[in-house]
Amino acid sequence: MPTYALLLEYDGAPFIGWQRQAEGLSVQQVLEDAAAHLNGGEVPTFTAAGRTDAGVHAEGQVAQVTLAAELPPERVREALNFHTRPHPVAVLGAAPVAGEWSARFSAIGRAYRYRILNRRARPALDLGRVWHVQRRLDAGAMHEAAQGLLGKHDFSAYRAAACQAKSALRTLDRLDVSRFGDEVVITAEARSFLHHQVRNMVGTLAEVGLGKRPASWPRSVLDGRDRTRAGQTAPPEGLVLTGVRYAEPLDWR
Amino acid sequence: MPTYALLLEYDGAPFIGWQRQAEGLSVQQVLEDAAAHLNGGEVPTFTAAGRTDAGVHAEGQVAQVTLAAELPPERVREALNFHTRPHPVAVLGAAPVAGEWSARFSAIGRAYRYRILNRRARPALDLGRVWHVQRRLDAGAMHEAAQGLLGKHDFSAYRAAACQAKSALRTLDRLDVSRFGDEVVITAEARSFLHHQVRNMVGTLAEVGLGKRPASWPRSVLDGRDRTRAGQTAPPEGLVLTGVRYAEPLDWR
Repeated sequence: MPTYALLLEYDGAPFIGWQRQAEGLSVQQVLEDAAAHLNGGEVPTFTAAGRTDAGVHAEGQVAQVTLAAELPPERVREALNFHTRPHPVAVLGAAPVAGEWSARFSAIGRAYRYRILNRRARPALDLGRVWHVQRRLDAGAMHEAAQGLLGKHDFSAYRAAACQAKSALRTLDRLDVSRFGDEVVITAEARSFLHHQVRNMVGTLAEVGLGKRPASWPRSVLDGRDRTRAGQTAPPEGLVLTGVRYAEPLDWR
Repeated sequence: MPTYALLLEYDGAPFIGWQRQAEGLSVQQVLEDAAAHLNGGEVPTFTAAGRTDAGVHAEGQVAQVTLAAELPPERVREALNFHTRPHPVAVLGAAPVAGEWSARFSAIGRAYRYRILNRRARPALDLGRVWHVQRRLDAGAMHEAAQGLLGKHDFSAYRAAACQAKSALRTLDRLDVSRFGDEVVITAEARSFLHHQVRNMVGTLAEVGLGKRPASWPRSVLDGRDRTRAGQTAPPEGLVLTGVRYAEPLDWR
């Protein structure tokens, strides 16, 4: 049976997250219910590269689905965009993939962006898209601190209590902090991340930005491997899954 | 009585526009009702540099209000931000101004940005922030056409039927069209604009971008001074008032 990769954009605000659950609407459910229209009424299963949490957005999530019959990828994309209405989920592209390909396990890189609105006034235009921090953040100190987390480490101190990964060993390839006017933007890249890892790193870096902790602190938290020592989990609305990388680029249609 | 300039950000979606009207909620009403709390219960009048239409956003609108008693500008800003909750209106700064200063008539420049999302899939993350155009736009041809509108002209062909300005003579200082990936962004600057002028110019340039009209067409529409010859009025949600300029920069607090 033919399998398709799907490139997805969604607003995380109205959803309980990517994953289907008994209560509440998930991105997965919206897509699966839409895909049933292409699948003789049978609801197929979607698997995503990253199971984003409630409130977390995506500009470049990748998922896969196997359908009963072969269809042109353009048709899959258009039909899913039609049947996901009016939910804020858009299929930007579809690509046929081989049976052994996995949206999750074939991914060799994941990239996230975290936006902090750093000003007195609350967000009006970017409400639900940023973490609002009123006190001035020192983005330079946050960037310096972030560099201490790069490389291969046991990230136990930055994982959620509920994290199901067998190992906490991860290789962090990039963690940049830059200021653009009133915004502080954090960019994170790795092959994969632990549950809440990006949000826990952002919450910990924010303590440095506020001057409460030195730039060396996030690294000493890492070395301590104790979750209770890190900063708060930054709220989900500032986080966007910007892209997923594969060894073989996909032929998006 | 002391007068304050206010720097404002708002999401235009839930409002009938800047201006107070008998029916529906306006940005002006939200601010005036909030300011009454600072004014002994008396509802003061706000005047804005640009009366944005329903659905049009602002990142840098400037308005003025006169209050009964002198207050530190920081206090005016904070109190308005408190009392405008939960509406998506934020006061980014407040500055005391002299009695003869006018948010509207002292302005020497206004800048707008118009965003077009130019792809097949509907917007998910930028819903309500962009005009969705599915067919490919030639941004280069749009930019070339836009240059023909620069300078001082009678813009009758690009004004709304309801426009109340006595003269249609305006000097367009900048009209740039650029593509950033799937987005086509139009930047417009002038001392002032006619009602619907930016949206009518964008709708006309889009005809060029779609290849329906040559790059010389928007200029010939201008020269014809006939509104019925121009393209459609582009929808409000793509438009943002990005800033207002004054000869004397304001001391925002």
